[in-house]
Amino acid sequence: MAELRRDPLLDRWIITGTAQGESLEALITIYKKVSSQECPFCVGKETETLPEIFALRQTGSRVNTPDWQVRVIPTRTQTLTLQGDLQKRGEGGIYDLENAIGSHEIVIVSPKHLTHFSQLSPEEIAEVLKVYRWRLQELAKNNLCRYALIFHNQGDGPVAVEHAHSQIVTLPFVPKTIREEINGAKRYYNFKMRCIFCDILEQEIETNKRVVLENEDCLAFTPFASRFPFEVWILPKKHGCCFVESEEETFFNLGVVLKNVLGRIEKVLANPPLNFILHTAPLRYQELDEGEIISDVYHWHLEILPHALPAGGFEWGGDFYLNPPLPEVTAKILRES
Amino acid sequence: MAELRRDPLLDRWIITGTAQGESLEALITIYKKVSSQECPFCVGKETETLPEIFALRQTGSRVNTPDWQVRVIPTRTQTLTLQGDLQKRGEGGIYDLENAIGSHEIVIVSPKHLTHFSQLSPEEIAEVLKVYRWRLQELAKNNLCRYALIFHNQGDGPVAVEHAHSQIVTLPFVPKTIREEINGAKRYYNFKMRCIFCDILEQEIETNKRVVLENEDCLAFTPFASRFPFEVWILPKKHGCCFVESEEETFFNLGVVLKNVLGRIEKVLANPPLNFILHTAPLRYQELDEGEIISDVYHWHLEILPHALPAGGFEWGGDFYLNPPLPEVTAKILRES
Repeated sequence: MAELRRDPLLDRWIITGTAQGESLEALITIYKKVSSQECPFCVGKETETLPEIFALRQTGSRVNTPDWQVRVIPTRTQTLTLQGDLQKRGEGGIYDLENAIGSHEIVIVSPKHLTHFSQLSPEEIAEVLKVYRWRLQELAKNNLCRYALIFHNQGDGPVAVEHAHSQIVTLPFVPKTIREEINGAKRYYNFKMRCIFCDILEQEIETNKRVVLENEDCLAFTPFASRFPFEVWILPKKHGCCFVESEEETFFNLGVVLKNVLGRIEKVLANPPLNFILHTAPLRYQELDEGEIISDVYHWHLEILPHALPAGGFEWGGDFYLNPPLPEVTAKILRES
Repeated sequence: MAELRRDPLLDRWIITGTAQGESLEALITIYKKVSSQECPFCVGKETETLPEIFALRQTGSRVNTPDWQVRVIPTRTQTLTLQGDLQKRGEGGIYDLENAIGSHEIVIVSPKHLTHFSQLSPEEIAEVLKVYRWRLQELAKNNLCRYALIFHNQGDGPVAVEHAHSQIVTLPFVPKTIREEINGAKRYYNFKMRCIFCDILEQEIETNKRVVLENEDCLAFTPFASRFPFEVWILPKKHGCCFVESEEETFFNLGVVLKNVLGRIEKVLANPPLNFILHTAPLRYQELDEGEIISDVYHWHLEILPHALPAGGFEWGGDFYLNPPLPEVTAKILRES
């Protein structure tokens, strides 16, 4: 069984042992790209994947058949599982480990063999966002799951299949980045009694130096301390810590901005590898001791991270980033592209 | 001038604005690899780089001429500078920034056009380690510099020149990863009254499940919560928080282990991109309030991070890592390769 291991120094969790028993060769070949002819995510290949967990389907169509628009399946490697329990244990007094409890799902965003999320229409993106939300609502019902990380990898990254797909990973803990964001937002709130994200929104709109795109419901901008060239965050204008609680009517406008910004980044950087990541409150945050505080201080958002330059010693050695162009410059380039 | 910007949420620093005024095209082309024919780091091309800061030379040979073994030069992009002062300031109340005070040096590890650090002999590696140390001693004299990050990028990473070279980056703050390591080590020490790294050393030697190589002075092993497949740490056996204070006699044995481990990783993963990073105490740590504590709790070491799988949403979204093979498995493969 796969293991969740805690770094004893940094309180950072690692999932490992998913390639247990497989040869090194097999490990490496599973990461090879699958060409479109043999793509198991295309419509008509429903029996080549594990049975679907959920699909947005035409009324009356049967599960695991064609006629779907968005389809959710488990990963074949079964990285995490909801079978069994955590069995928290130690190794030699220093090391903590747990069974890899959780789930790992693939959201196939289109029945067509699209390779870029930006090829979806804003209406289609709104449907994908609804699927994200339905899955978050469903996964929150399992008490072992404390967080659901939703992200989309595109391009040269760790993509086994090029057919555009997002991933939903539920975990029995809140990931380090999200805990740090909540703690950072609390510190700001204690000082100013305001949500830091709402203040950032206001200031970015006012100074208009780093805005890429804005509409009624959301703002896309290059963050002040961008880690990567052409990094863009999309913030909903209305305060809310939890993506699940956001209004469905805003999804179309979010889709417009997401499609547009991704398209600009792909144009300027000639289709770089990129990820976008949903940052939202922990599952069932309302039941946590700090639930009310999270609701006040945290603000869900999307982060788009292009990787035109690979990470090196700066990033892995210091959690310190060298980002050559100023975000004001990249915002201007994106606005004008 | 380049800027150091603080992420208002995560207390993470970014250096940006180093490509200010340059076109996007220029930004991207500076990362193109330079072929060996035009390599400015090879012996005989001393006038094609900025004047050397330091070189290990044959007695009597003049600066910026051939006859050197290891040569230290400033980077051409002048990412950080020791000219001027920090000028800490804000933008709109939310954002903090400073001038990019510090230095960025290149350590050319051989006059020959080697592309792999493992091509050096253990004796040559010992000389490189001495140069690291001399530079750390020298850079510690500047009160604006609080930390010196030493790392070596190899392969597909952000390498402008393939000729093997390390980098020394001095910063006006301690990077997030090092601060977290010191804090984590303090927590352990408060609880057990022992250095966590010394305990890890002892346990790794005793269980012998993750050991790759051991000699009189150091231990190479795959850490329990490895982030990357075939990640290896090299720990000196003798406790010490600061690389500068380690005994020169141990450098040969460290060179033996470093060369050997890098060679095994390169063999198993067919020359993956990798970094190795020196983790050591802040400059002039003795003068800090917590200087004595750092000396007790921290333990300098080298981390070797191969990047056979690129980072994706897991890593960038959660500071959470999916590392398919167990470290016990990769240690065995490296031992037997």
